Amino acid sequence: MSDKFKNVTEAQLKDYIKTIFLEVGLPENDASIVSNLMTEADMLGVDTHGVFRLPQYVKRLIAGGINKTPNISIVRERSAMALLNGDNAMGHLVMEKAANIAVAKAKDHGVAWVGANSSNHAGPASLYARIPLKEDMIGIYVAVGSSNHVPPWGGTDLLLSTNPIAISIPSMKRPPIVLDMATTVAAYGKVKEKLQRKEEMPVGWMIDKEGKPLTDPSKSSEGFLLPIGEAKGYGLALMFGILAGTLNGAAFGKAVVDFNADAKSFTNTGHFIIAVDIAAFTDVDQFKRNIDDVWAQMKGSNVLPGFDEVRLPGERSNNLFNERKKNGIPIHDNLKQALDQLSEQLNTKKIY
Amino acid sequence: MSDKFKNVTEAQLKDYIKTIFLEVGLPENDASIVSNLMTEADMLGVDTHGVFRLPQYVKRLIAGGINKTPNISIVRERSAMALLNGDNAMGHLVMEKAANIAVAKAKDHGVAWVGANSSNHAGPASLYARIPLKEDMIGIYVAVGSSNHVPPWGGTDLLLSTNPIAISIPSMKRPPIVLDMATTVAAYGKVKEKLQRKEEMPVGWMIDKEGKPLTDPSKSSEGFLLPIGEAKGYGLALMFGILAGTLNGAAFGKAVVDFNADAKSFTNTGHFIIAVDIAAFTDVDQFKRNIDDVWAQMKGSNVLPGFDEVRLPGERSNNLFNERKKNGIPIHDNLKQALDQLSEQLNTKKIY
Repeated sequence: MSDKFKNVTEAQLKDYIKTIFLEVGLPENDASIVSNLMTEADMLGVDTHGVFRLPQYVKRLIAGGINKTPNISIVRERSAMALLNGDNAMGHLVMEKAANIAVAKAKDHGVAWVGANSSNHAGPASLYARIPLKEDMIGIYVAVGSSNHVPPWGGTDLLLSTNPIAISIPSMKRPPIVLDMATTVAAYGKVKEKLQRKEEMPVGWMIDKEGKPLTDPSKSSEGFLLPIGEAKGYGLALMFGILAGTLNGAAFGKAVVDFNADAKSFTNTGHFIIAVDIAAFTDVDQFKRNIDDVWAQMKGSNVLPGFDEVRLPGERSNNLFNERKKNGIPIHDNLKQALDQLSEQLNTKKIY
Repeated sequence: MSDKFKNVTEAQLKDYIKTIFLEVGLPENDASIVSNLMTEADMLGVDTHGVFRLPQYVKRLIAGGINKTPNISIVRERSAMALLNGDNAMGHLVMEKAANIAVAKAKDHGVAWVGANSSNHAGPASLYARIPLKEDMIGIYVAVGSSNHVPPWGGTDLLLSTNPIAISIPSMKRPPIVLDMATTVAAYGKVKEKLQRKEEMPVGWMIDKEGKPLTDPSKSSEGFLLPIGEAKGYGLALMFGILAGTLNGAAFGKAVVDFNADAKSFTNTGHFIIAVDIAAFTDVDQFKRNIDDVWAQMKGSNVLPGFDEVRLPGERSNNLFNERKKNGIPIHDNLKQALDQLSEQLNTKKIY
């Protein structure tokens, strides 16, 4: 580990985040839920979507851009679906609730789909896709990203976000398989991390309006992120945006508010989650053993020159989770500075 | 249009295909359903997945690799899901039934997910995703591909297929938005088309076991297709394979039978379809007007150097459908030869 990092424990980080949220005015229970989820993001190694986002969330909470005391409610419902109005709450609260509703409905009906509007950035997609795992269900989560960095394929107008998808599948002895991916080559959080760490971006992440590679993260506003598979990634970002945004009455396309540039405007962020009850389809234990076998098949593959082994989606996260349980979560110097500034502003104790 | 093609009418093609299936022994109604769907594939411009596949289907039907007189039945059911046993039927029959069940269940429960095992290749994914459009629903279809051409990312063992997804969304005055994509840079059908047309493949479609570009379609068995977005496309192919295969008790991974190499073995192909009733979430007309607005936003984008305009997923298919209604469906000389051979073998009349 570089000397630019210093580690904090899971408990330290949870406590630090919760204290900040309480100070800002979140109710006790809500502060707990959000600090748990944000810490889980860091534990899972999604360093761009955990405590890294705290200053931005606090800025919005203080400026009134996020509602501190929301009433998250079901506004439309059938047996296998619900639509939530998030009342401009922290996205974590909205989607934790949505995931739990989806699980309860899937238990009765086999499958359930719960969408939300009037929500906000909720951290990494995988947090919510993982919730159904606890009940031996499969989780699928999709969100409209919170700022547009992607044009339609062949275009230059920023009409789409990185609109991510996460899918989680339980296993027996192996870790669950958990895919969490942006529909762009790089997630925008990766660009922000490069900026904070003062590093160049690799070619292929972004291009400028002439179609030339853009590698300086401080110039990211002059270009755009590239979708995976060119027109295919554009197609996925578009469809995910319609399903998570338009269908829910949430923002999509030109209506998306750039929450990086703006601390006050209502973002009307949309997401949805699907829970699939494995028991409705097959024997759960047999299914989970079959997923262990999928692990074994993939791991058993011969490798291409330059690779040491095949990895499963979520394997790296699972390893980091275990490693961080033991050794703590590395906090980069620049992030530490940003958090210290926040602690000074709110007059709360520093992270270390 | 090159002189290597000659056009046939929609009715001509439908009749030609149906006659072949009746001759092979499919019941009247089944022969109609399959010939309608296969012709629709060609009408929509999916030239690699319509009549192009007829010789292969017939070979399997004659050899006993596909059941001519199946009993497709629901084997597991809850209110928002069903699992079908396809009884080794033509995949078109299984998924047409699955889509109709999904639509009926979504009408009551808002959303429904119908999976199938013991099925076969069903042509282009979009055919089934389009079925819910008729009831103002959104359709999502995923399949396990019928032969493995993709290793896990970093590996060289062919454990995955191109596992495609299709998503369809209805609109008001514009055509529906319909995404239909393989999780690989190129679908394998495109490779087969290049082979039949004796053309080279572009760099980026396939690599060999050393990681070098492979462009000769006759050597496709020596290499593999590249997933979109590298590890991301691998992740999607893996997850779609588990959801459409493992969850349904259908083949996935090493269990996938290469239906190109084999006319007899039971393929146990898996697919699933989700129907989402828009009326459960919002006002249908308003939603469809909003999708027209999505069209307008994307179309209104400025373009990159080298592009003339932005296209929506399904736009090309829609244009081809209208064009082919007027002018007919172009049949390539090499395809014509293959079909003539089939007609001679079965002693049925030639396509023209």
